[in-house]
Amino acid sequence: MTDPARPRTPLLDRVRDPRDLKALTDAQLRQVADELRAETISAVSVTGGHLGAGLGVVELTVALHAVFDTPRDRLIWDVGHQAYPHKILTGRRDRIRTLRQKDGLSGFTKRSESPYDPFGAAHSSTSISAALGLAVARDLGAEPPDNCGLGDCIAVIGDGSISAGMAYEAMNNAGHLGTRLFVILNDNEMSIAPPVGAMSAYLTRLYAGAPFQDLRAAAKAAAHLLPEPLREGAKRAKDALKHLAVGHGTLFDELGFSYVGPVDGHDMDQLLSVLRTVKARATGPVLIHAITRKGKGYAPAEAAADRGHATAKFDVITGAQAKAASNAPSYTSVFADALIRAAQKDRRIVAVTAAMPDGTGLSKFMDRFSDRCFDVGIAEQHAVTFSAGLAAGGLRPFCAIYSTFLQRGYDQIVHDVAIQRLPVRFAIDRAGLVGADGATHAGSFDVAFLANLPGFVVMAAADEAELARMVTTAAAHDTGPIAFRFPRGEGVGVEIDWTAPPLEIGKGRIVREGSGVALLSLGTRLSEALKAAESLEARGIRPTVADARFAKPLDRDLILSLARTHDILLTIEEGAVGGFGSHVAQLLSDEGLFDHGLKFRSLTLPDTFIDHASPSEMYAEARLNAEDIERKVLELLGAKVLGKRA
Amino acid sequence: MTDPARPRTPLLDRVRDPRDLKALTDAQLRQVADELRAETISAVSVTGGHLGAGLGVVELTVALHAVFDTPRDRLIWDVGHQAYPHKILTGRRDRIRTLRQKDGLSGFTKRSESPYDPFGAAHSSTSISAALGLAVARDLGAEPPDNCGLGDCIAVIGDGSISAGMAYEAMNNAGHLGTRLFVILNDNEMSIAPPVGAMSAYLTRLYAGAPFQDLRAAAKAAAHLLPEPLREGAKRAKDALKHLAVGHGTLFDELGFSYVGPVDGHDMDQLLSVLRTVKARATGPVLIHAITRKGKGYAPAEAAADRGHATAKFDVITGAQAKAASNAPSYTSVFADALIRAAQKDRRIVAVTAAMPDGTGLSKFMDRFSDRCFDVGIAEQHAVTFSAGLAAGGLRPFCAIYSTFLQRGYDQIVHDVAIQRLPVRFAIDRAGLVGADGATHAGSFDVAFLANLPGFVVMAAADEAELARMVTTAAAHDTGPIAFRFPRGEGVGVEIDWTAPPLEIGKGRIVREGSGVALLSLGTRLSEALKAAESLEARGIRPTVADARFAKPLDRDLILSLARTHDILLTIEEGAVGGFGSHVAQLLSDEGLFDHGLKFRSLTLPDTFIDHASPSEMYAEARLNAEDIERKVLELLGAKVLGKRA
Repeated sequence: MTDPARPRTPLLDRVRDPRDLKALTDAQLRQVADELRAETISAVSVTGGHLGAGLGVVELTVALHAVFDTPRDRLIWDVGHQAYPHKILTGRRDRIRTLRQKDGLSGFTKRSESPYDPFGAAHSSTSISAALGLAVARDLGAEPPDNCGLGDCIAVIGDGSISAGMAYEAMNNAGHLGTRLFVILNDNEMSIAPPVGAMSAYLTRLYAGAPFQDLRAAAKAAAHLLPEPLREGAKRAKDALKHLAVGHGTLFDELGFSYVGPVDGHDMDQLLSVLRTVKARATGPVLIHAITRKGKGYAPAEAAADRGHATAKFDVITGAQAKAASNAPSYTSVFADALIRAAQKDRRIVAVTAAMPDGTGLSKFMDRFSDRCFDVGIAEQHAVTFSAGLAAGGLRPFCAIYSTFLQRGYDQIVHDVAIQRLPVRFAIDRAGLVGADGATHAGSFDVAFLANLPGFVVMAAADEAELARMVTTAAAHDTGPIAFRFPRGEGVGVEIDWTAPPLEIGKGRIVREGSGVALLSLGTRLSEALKAAESLEARGIRPTVADARFAKPLDRDLILSLARTHDILLTIEEGAVGGFGSHVAQLLSDEGLFDHGLKFRSLTLPDTFIDHASPSEMYAEARLNAEDIERKVLELLGAKVLGKRA
Repeated sequence: MTDPARPRTPLLDRVRDPRDLKALTDAQLRQVADELRAETISAVSVTGGHLGAGLGVVELTVALHAVFDTPRDRLIWDVGHQAYPHKILTGRRDRIRTLRQKDGLSGFTKRSESPYDPFGAAHSSTSISAALGLAVARDLGAEPPDNCGLGDCIAVIGDGSISAGMAYEAMNNAGHLGTRLFVILNDNEMSIAPPVGAMSAYLTRLYAGAPFQDLRAAAKAAAHLLPEPLREGAKRAKDALKHLAVGHGTLFDELGFSYVGPVDGHDMDQLLSVLRTVKARATGPVLIHAITRKGKGYAPAEAAADRGHATAKFDVITGAQAKAASNAPSYTSVFADALIRAAQKDRRIVAVTAAMPDGTGLSKFMDRFSDRCFDVGIAEQHAVTFSAGLAAGGLRPFCAIYSTFLQRGYDQIVHDVAIQRLPVRFAIDRAGLVGADGATHAGSFDVAFLANLPGFVVMAAADEAELARMVTTAAAHDTGPIAFRFPRGEGVGVEIDWTAPPLEIGKGRIVREGSGVALLSLGTRLSEALKAAESLEARGIRPTVADARFAKPLDRDLILSLARTHDILLTIEEGAVGGFGSHVAQLLSDEGLFDHGLKFRSLTLPDTFIDHASPSEMYAEARLNAEDIERKVLELLGAKVLGKRA
């Protein structure tokens, strides 16, 4: 710890696990928080990652671990990207500078990583459901598999996350069951973008209506609000509290929670006092409304529009981020530019995002067409059906949701879009393996869960020029639902012809003519297929390479012709079994192409959840890189020789 | 209309479409409602179907069509099973006795059926999202494809449906956007079962706290509550209203809605008055809280525990329902009995339902183990993650959700259960085609969307004995998630050995030894495969018939052996492409079984949404009955001969 680049953290150095916090005075806990903040900034400056959210909960992290008995008490961080300080405090400080690197710590909470992560996360709004499940298990006397007992259950959830339906479903159930449960509403008035929606406005009114209590009042409020079973006069105390806390019954009260707050989430004394009080008194579900500031204590983050949500490696003093030199635009920005062009020509085009205007590129669209862009909050179910309603009304919505989050709206895609054949266009960013965000954010299943829906059109872009053209194609497709998927990151650097006409629905293309071996790619593995073909050519093998473009409808003519004119047919895709290759196999078997022999193989993502690493490391693990394609072809050619001998 | 079995409906007979209501007096509208109720009862007595919900909204249906200008004003019935009276009023009376029959009217609303159904439904809680989409399309000047203009948008949603997260997401967005929109909260204190949850308790408090206004007060309340842009003193009027309406700001007010109510949903004068007022005055989103009684006006329905939710054909006078004679227990009851047996042996077993205790059979379990059964309301997302939390706490939850509704919890299955390898057991009822409920309720996609999740075990029961054994198998599977699917309806009548040991994971069975042709079935098509085999035997063909039992992990040995020792291999399943057959094809191609020729075919559900009919009619359309299997085998044998000739 004498590295001059590292902050001085004498007290934090003595905290090996949360039990060590119990011996410290409140003043020392304040100092631990300051040191923890410095250490978090230092670590993320080396690794990159989610910075702002963690900085906003430094005091809360220290206070929770100081007051509660983790890991017996179960602390569940919603999303989990704010848990870097928590990781530092819970035995993972020695690995904190491996965050989001291959074989390093996850950027989210993860059960397999630590007993202090009782329920992993990464997608938002799951924490109250999980905490309630654990609380009920405790009430029924269950023995958790980690043998450390089951005490209090605490969910920490942001004001952005609480806009999702499942958080409401969980509160509705918790209020009904009435079991002891703590929900800390971490209200930083930001999710990734500023939160939208009536709930957000309501929280602001709650806060505006009741400036922070002073320390004594806050503790008294908490004490009075909660039932103390043995004391008389609880009702009168509770009534008295209403004036102290927020002046009237809140929405959370109506849902069966005791509401405590708002409290200053950076005031350690107030936090400790309130947490100690609720811990001593609560008999049912309690919601503690803590006001925090995302990026707190690090000026460059506080000053940023996204409060330092996610960052590359950076210089601690200036905040300047390392930036990889890149020649190609990101797929996201190509999507946004193409959509703006399409919207200029067709005023029916509108766009919908679920709390990801920047991530999906729609903030650019919003700047241009503010009245035609809708951020509905973290609410994918609503986003899809709202889009269906827009389409039923004659508009042409582009619903832009990451592949992994689209799983949240699956039933709505089936029930409201597909069955009704409504012209909703799904722009599916982050398809395939995504790198540092790991398995929870992989877009592995979308082709499988969309391509079997009757009437759906499903495309995957091979490069950024194809993506631009697929936006044009989707914009022109008025007769039903259509989806196009594209990966995270930068394109391959090809020229984009913005005036290219729409693709013919269900038609692929041959990119390279050859013989004997056909490589049929869906999506951006095309460049790997081409690399493999080049390398094979050096061995005298000249594969045909085709880009399917469509997973649905399949290009029957192209696929059957490839199968009939080649000995070997390989499909390659960035998705799980059940997707493109499976639909090709179904076509080939239906048409009898296997009856008399065809060396057909389908390269897909493997049947494992692949941990975070760089995308190229992940694809190497998935065996979907050029050398894997080449190896498979060589193996099949060898097998063919053997087969002829037999 | 002189059929003596039909009720006398002189006024209703004059209503050809809702425009005819405009000429009637309020007193005549009351009479139309009475006649409409009689006609609804008469129709459902002939067809069977959802009765109670429709009877509860007869007055509301007449009042809405009388006050608003449908179809230009868009009336969206949540779920849509309460829309039989709406269908009678909107030009479909002549076909009302074809409800839920093949080629007849759908039991839900359906866009393709009528311009008066602007957004179809069947799953719950979609109506506010859809209505908001239509309202925004109107605000942007969109031209709907039906060319009848776009006026007001009205969602009618039950108090059960409003417990789902997506309804909250939609209100959160509507309150934020602030556009004119009407939500009628049809509060009958019932969904299918009595609703559970804190929201339900809250609605009851609202109602209890404010008995119905008299006619004048109700209209005045509505008028005062809503802004009238040109009038001064609106603020004062609004304050005054608070005492009139519910005494304080409601939860809906907090979410940005103007709350009007509660109003008596069977008092036509009050309904007309309130609807006319809100129509004249509203500038933003309005929620009208109407109290109704499910089954209203038909004594046998009102007296039933489920208020006549769904019924077979019945005798109008006595209410006695026609009942098909059946020798076999339903799959649902076998599941419930098997689960009770397992729970007697293992106290860690608990059960979770999302508002379907009767439909899933869990009410039986609840009677036996009241503290180990959780009805979380219509909240599939929460149900799945709550189950994951229970499992993380050491319990062994069985999460019982219909196949089609499980689509609502897909992301939670991936993110909270599969990635964390938690031992949640999914009991998937209503898998495959379901009959009269039609395409929206078909369980077509579950195998495809589950079998590609790493670490998942996916089973399908071939008959009721297999189902009982799969419950035992799931109960014994402690190392990760497991799912078993089974169809709607009665078993095939086989003996159940309740003491059979758990199945070996990933092992199928050969049911009938043969040669040349192998039929490999997953699920209850096994009986059709056996029938086909018998019929083929008469032609001298003796197929092997196997029951895969597992879609994941596949029984590699069984499948590869069948492929190696037979010329023809057919898979048969009650699911879409991407499921069992696709995984078998992937295995066969990976292992090189196609390289030298194999007549492999995969029989799946076709690539269409199949409309309601009887299950056997639907399977005939899907070409998955015995004769279809037989035909396919004969075709392949013929092709084989041809192939040899060529």
